[in-house]
Amino acid sequence: TQNYRITLLPGDGIGPEIMAVAVDVLKVVGKQFNLEFEFQEALIGGAAIDATGEPLPSATLDTCRNSDAVLLAAIGGYKWDSLPSNSRPEAGLLGLRAGLGLFANLRPAQILPQLIDASTLKREVVEGVDIMVVRELTGGIYFGKPKGIFATETGEKRGVNTMVYTESEIERIGRVAFETARKRQGKLCSVDKANVLEVSQLWRDRMTKLAAEYPDVELSHLYVDNAAMQLVRAPKQFDTIVTGNLFGDILSDAAAMLTGSIGMLPSASLGAAGPGVFEPVHGSAPDIAGQDKANPLAQILSAAMMLRYGLDQPKAAEFIEKAVLQVLEQGDRTGDIMSEGMNLLGCRAMGDALIKT
Amino acid sequence: TQNYRITLLPGDGIGPEIMAVAVDVLKVVGKQFNLEFEFQEALIGGAAIDATGEPLPSATLDTCRNSDAVLLAAIGGYKWDSLPSNSRPEAGLLGLRAGLGLFANLRPAQILPQLIDASTLKREVVEGVDIMVVRELTGGIYFGKPKGIFATETGEKRGVNTMVYTESEIERIGRVAFETARKRQGKLCSVDKANVLEVSQLWRDRMTKLAAEYPDVELSHLYVDNAAMQLVRAPKQFDTIVTGNLFGDILSDAAAMLTGSIGMLPSASLGAAGPGVFEPVHGSAPDIAGQDKANPLAQILSAAMMLRYGLDQPKAAEFIEKAVLQVLEQGDRTGDIMSEGMNLLGCRAMGDALIKT
Ligand SMILES: CC(C)[C@H](C(=O)O)[C@@H](O)C(=O)O
Ligand SMILES: CC(C)[C@H](C(=O)O)[C@@H](O)C(=O)O
Repeated sequence: TQNYRITLLPGDGIGPEIMAVAVDVLKVVGKQFNLEFEFQEALIGGAAIDATGEPLPSATLDTCRNSDAVLLAAIGGYKWDSLPSNSRPEAGLLGLRAGLGLFANLRPAQILPQLIDASTLKREVVEGVDIMVVRELTGGIYFGKPKGIFATETGEKRGVNTMVYTESEIERIGRVAFETARKRQGKLCSVDKANVLEVSQLWRDRMTKLAAEYPDVELSHLYVDNAAMQLVRAPKQFDTIVTGNLFGDILSDAAAMLTGSIGMLPSASLGAAGPGVFEPVHGSAPDIAGQDKANPLAQILSAAMMLRYGLDQPKAAEFIEKAVLQVLEQGDRTGDIMSEGMNLLGCRAMGDALIKT
Repeated sequence: TQNYRITLLPGDGIGPEIMAVAVDVLKVVGKQFNLEFEFQEALIGGAAIDATGEPLPSATLDTCRNSDAVLLAAIGGYKWDSLPSNSRPEAGLLGLRAGLGLFANLRPAQILPQLIDASTLKREVVEGVDIMVVRELTGGIYFGKPKGIFATETGEKRGVNTMVYTESEIERIGRVAFETARKRQGKLCSVDKANVLEVSQLWRDRMTKLAAEYPDVELSHLYVDNAAMQLVRAPKQFDTIVTGNLFGDILSDAAAMLTGSIGMLPSASLGAAGPGVFEPVHGSAPDIAGQDKANPLAQILSAAMMLRYGLDQPKAAEFIEKAVLQVLEQGDRTGDIMSEGMNLLGCRAMGDALIKT
């Protein structure tokens, strides 16, 4: 038996419900594959603010550091929206990323044949879409300094944030992206705004140099505005996309929405060493929290990503992914992906259906 | 008769072809509405680099300043792509915006019933979409300092750009946006990244304060990642969008692509006083340049925007816009918007068809 210490961060809104289901699934998979999970729960986001006054208590960061992988559900909600940004739930998430050095964020956007009609795009445009966005996660304008709101000489306020990348930061995420593309279709598109931004020129320059080390990967470049267009115009042209923190935030969400079902999409955030964080792409959906209506599948698929990328247990990951396809195949649906003739299930019932398969 | 001095900047690629057609249309409209146009042509972009070594010769800026409005076609092309960014065709465009103080960029994205099938989105999702993106154009990360590529202490390079907005810059574009929304459906959505960026917090704060002066306009806020999603998920929810330079670049292109026919979309760039610049959203399409294949309608609709926003001749603008709908109605199409059973026309023939109606 392999032993793993897993930190669970249920967070806010629908977080605790979907987390509970994912944990049940992990227990079943553990038995199947001889994996022993020791779960430890910690506070983050709004729940942590309410309990301790801080979105990321230092005890939480310690617990995470002291584990093999972190499974996160969702954070935030209207309740905390009026707090200043550095004490909001989101600050907990940014602190976790920085604290664990999670510089590489993998966000798959894949059209599942069973859910293709959920897309707002025409079937022929999205059929077979399978994109992996590799987003840099601990640099760029999210963390660059100077940042803040300052008074000018004339007394008016001036808001400032700084987009910064060093060569080594670019190279580090570049390597992850080239390795990722190599395991996929071998096509990597680097997205920047090099026709305007110097930081993007350095980005493009480093990515181009790095390409020499990965002759089996075909590198292309797009400006971010054009990339946003191309995702809408012809998403099948993309295999792997690599980009900075801010552009990755925007483009991974646009790519996710092409599928029409963001309740299905997981993500992985990885560092050079130490535990990764695995979480669904969707938010905390406070409007349906506690009503057993949430779709737990993105959380369950995040657990699968944890098994694959965090614990190197690809077979167990595949086992979960196949089970998800199977419940969809047999017509089980939560409200967000419901369509005519399918079986409408609640959050827990969807978990049970999955465990039964 | 009203007299207007119009500067024409044909630029690169298909620019000269589509400009020639737009000028012919303007001449006809001028006769109809008793407007006398004095056209003066100047160099910009790659054409200016080839002729003078600079993407925006000072003579061009002088000519523009000395006119009532500027009609621009398109700039750029592979030929100049390897130049350093501050001497590329794009630098000419940025210099023109800064030089004329064009802080407000209006980018409509409207689904025309005749072309609805060109969209990659399902008919029911895009039917009736009519969005106006108001983009700040002379501030933000496009112009903020410090900017550049610097050496760090360890000798590695560091790329830096700075996103900056002052209260007065935000207020200035905010007023344009509220006024614009007021003349439309009265709904304004301000897009920022206030959950992460301080500059966005100041943005959101000022927009919220400004809303008190426009009680007839309903203001909402979205984070930029969510806005990119919502444009794909349910674009009909939007009326007017206001955002900064970089987010506006990305979102206006995504919105444009919803229509499926960016060969149809004009834009206007306006300052506090002095001439505005009117140009199509599409690029210079070097691959089809000189072949009489380009769609001149975005250029012609840009001339209409010039009449409306630049010269205060709304009736003449409407006259052109109606004629464009009419040629589409009678089945005339250029290659980019061609579909079965329609009449395929070249660039010049499309102009002639329009003039005949
Ligand atoms: C909540 C927010 C800080 C976060 C981000 O911008 O990174 C989110 O949008 C995401 O993409 O994970
Ligand atoms: C060509 C480029 C500098 C420009 C921009 O980024 O503003 C273009 O993309 C646009 O949107 O007009």
